[in-house]
Amino acid sequence: MSYIEDLGARAKAAEYAIRNITTEQKNEALIAIAEILVANKGVIIAENRKDLENAEKNGMTKAFIDRLTLTAERIEKISSDVLEIAQLADPIGEILGGGQVRDGFNIVKKRVPLGVIGVIFESRPNVTVDAAALCMKSGNVCILRGGSDAINSNKCLVLFMRRALENIGISNDCILLVEDTSREVAGEMMKLNEYIDVLIPRGGSGLIKSVVENSTVPVIQTGEGNCHLYVDEIADIGMAVSIADNAKTQRPSVCNSIETLLVHKNAAPETLKELYAVWNGRVAIYGDKATADIIPVERIATEEDFYTEFNDYIIAVKVVDNVEEAIAHVNKYGTRHSECIITQNYEHARKFQQEVDAAAVYVNASTRFSDGNVFGLGAEIGISNQKLHARGPLGLRELTSYKYLIYGSGQIRT
Amino acid sequence: MSYIEDLGARAKAAEYAIRNITTEQKNEALIAIAEILVANKGVIIAENRKDLENAEKNGMTKAFIDRLTLTAERIEKISSDVLEIAQLADPIGEILGGGQVRDGFNIVKKRVPLGVIGVIFESRPNVTVDAAALCMKSGNVCILRGGSDAINSNKCLVLFMRRALENIGISNDCILLVEDTSREVAGEMMKLNEYIDVLIPRGGSGLIKSVVENSTVPVIQTGEGNCHLYVDEIADIGMAVSIADNAKTQRPSVCNSIETLLVHKNAAPETLKELYAVWNGRVAIYGDKATADIIPVERIATEEDFYTEFNDYIIAVKVVDNVEEAIAHVNKYGTRHSECIITQNYEHARKFQQEVDAAAVYVNASTRFSDGNVFGLGAEIGISNQKLHARGPLGLRELTSYKYLIYGSGQIRT
Repeated sequence: MSYIEDLGARAKAAEYAIRNITTEQKNEALIAIAEILVANKGVIIAENRKDLENAEKNGMTKAFIDRLTLTAERIEKISSDVLEIAQLADPIGEILGGGQVRDGFNIVKKRVPLGVIGVIFESRPNVTVDAAALCMKSGNVCILRGGSDAINSNKCLVLFMRRALENIGISNDCILLVEDTSREVAGEMMKLNEYIDVLIPRGGSGLIKSVVENSTVPVIQTGEGNCHLYVDEIADIGMAVSIADNAKTQRPSVCNSIETLLVHKNAAPETLKELYAVWNGRVAIYGDKATADIIPVERIATEEDFYTEFNDYIIAVKVVDNVEEAIAHVNKYGTRHSECIITQNYEHARKFQQEVDAAAVYVNASTRFSDGNVFGLGAEIGISNQKLHARGPLGLRELTSYKYLIYGSGQIRT
Repeated sequence: MSYIEDLGARAKAAEYAIRNITTEQKNEALIAIAEILVANKGVIIAENRKDLENAEKNGMTKAFIDRLTLTAERIEKISSDVLEIAQLADPIGEILGGGQVRDGFNIVKKRVPLGVIGVIFESRPNVTVDAAALCMKSGNVCILRGGSDAINSNKCLVLFMRRALENIGISNDCILLVEDTSREVAGEMMKLNEYIDVLIPRGGSGLIKSVVENSTVPVIQTGEGNCHLYVDEIADIGMAVSIADNAKTQRPSVCNSIETLLVHKNAAPETLKELYAVWNGRVAIYGDKATADIIPVERIATEEDFYTEFNDYIIAVKVVDNVEEAIAHVNKYGTRHSECIITQNYEHARKFQQEVDAAAVYVNASTRFSDGNVFGLGAEIGISNQKLHARGPLGLRELTSYKYLIYGSGQIRT
């Protein structure tokens, strides 16, 4: 049995061990995790420092190092997020349907955990705790595979989380870490259909692409957000500028920020001039020729630019003839995440929402609202941009499946 | 652009073309399909005969040829099944939730089609029509890839279905057939993420395994049914024998038939002797040693036998010490399809249903009931034995996704 097979077998055994776990026990586990992390923040910070030193030695970027860093304050925030998950309603056991099919033959459709969830992510140690807590609350066992750059932090965080489970008498194999962060082991993990029910990749598009291409375990694809804002012919330009600015610059590194601005030709002069003034050089504009005729651009946008998720203070801009062209552009270049139209035209609003193929389609509001909290799902483990299983924010309910329970009295099929 | 890319692009274009299709138009399409097939049954039977002649030349089995055969009666049945799908409620457009998140910011969660569904199947021409009709009713475009042995039948069926769509003014690319049935093209189809949203394999375990292993498009895995019946210590033996016989022999070739019988040691002598008398040599018994001590067996069951879906008049039998051993066996060897306990013990019934990991868990009723009609889903496109997206019978609703529609009035995130 290989290293990862052994981990998988332990996860599956733990899944069976916690089948009968109650909501109270799960909440108790989460509270214990929140407490143990805060109580040991000194140790965690010391282990995290090893990762930070390596990252500096390896010349990682400032943004990377920032994401990797754990401070007392950040550990407290991670801990309070776990306590918030404990507050959320337990989705497991909910009766989803059923009825009496024939005399004395009853069917009940009941919500159950997915089973064993593999989470493959990069070097943000907060994801380690967050993913473990969401899986625990939804009755799932998790196998966490974080990036090698965060291995010391992750080992330490998982050690304490496992100890918290042990302390209250829950199998510590409910939270497992892949300590061997080699590519080979990650590859084997993606083929571990016998033990892993679902894989969730969290991270950049390279990571997600690799998991989608190599995994035989069912995957929930998350986080690729090539999002658009379309300013229609009849639009409140003040609103358009305010939302475009918010959706681009409030937090450019996240998946629900916009990457391309589409503007109706008649709204283009005013909208683009105002935005140019608002951004005042803070955002690099890759515009098409029509854009360049109105405002100065950093460069003429290439076909490739329209496919790119910049995750930065960069925006591609294209002037379009009508709402149909905008919709066709979004459906061609978008990643089915979050899309927005700014319009005062009822029929165009309706058409855009109907015809754009995305998890969330906005009229007159910033795409930055796409997240589990705003959408009423509580915490989220990511935002799905595939259509199978779950679309948009993945909350606790999206980490579940169901089973049919049939109560008979000797019925046979004739 | 390769052959399959061209097909994919046409499918995606058709998907966008039918975004606004109404329930009435979909039903009209289904009625037109039902009518055109019956009106042209002579031509269809003639084309089917070519496939039958090839199958005979190639020395295919009687069972294979039976599944491939179309008769006037069978075409009428296929047609009436399509009319039944027209009668089912339309799942699309259903509002699944939503609410007012903040002042003037409303979210609506709405059911939408999956998009483009690829169906990969073997040589049963009825599947061709059935899959196309279920996809049409659920607003999806389908790309059908049937086996090469049925290519003449499939070309003819799809030709008429496409003509029916054309006649009523719906894009005929809503139903597409992969006419090049080479392995290479099937392999390319499994990587067509740009155009295909979901792949559904329908057929034997070899086909399903190949799709799961090679596809980067999300897959709904269906149909593998290594199902068990467990006869508990305190059970109505008459009921156990009747259900075991029904679940094994009423239609051994289908996925919801049982492959292994587990019997509590104290119930084993009476149960096995009675079943042996009922089957009277019609069912080959591969028993463990304890079974062989009670009744004559065809051979001693191997480890491999317990993993095998015989789909035939063969059953593996194992005597177990208790319900825990039965559950562990089912969870180890089963394919998470349909599992049954025969018991009069309330606690064992509850435990078995709780702890067995399967789409459908029965107490005192035949596993043969696992299907979309019995479960109230209407027609089905298969029975899923994965936990992602949908579990158990896949009806119209299981062929859908959802999207979030957000109605704002200028909100930005702060």
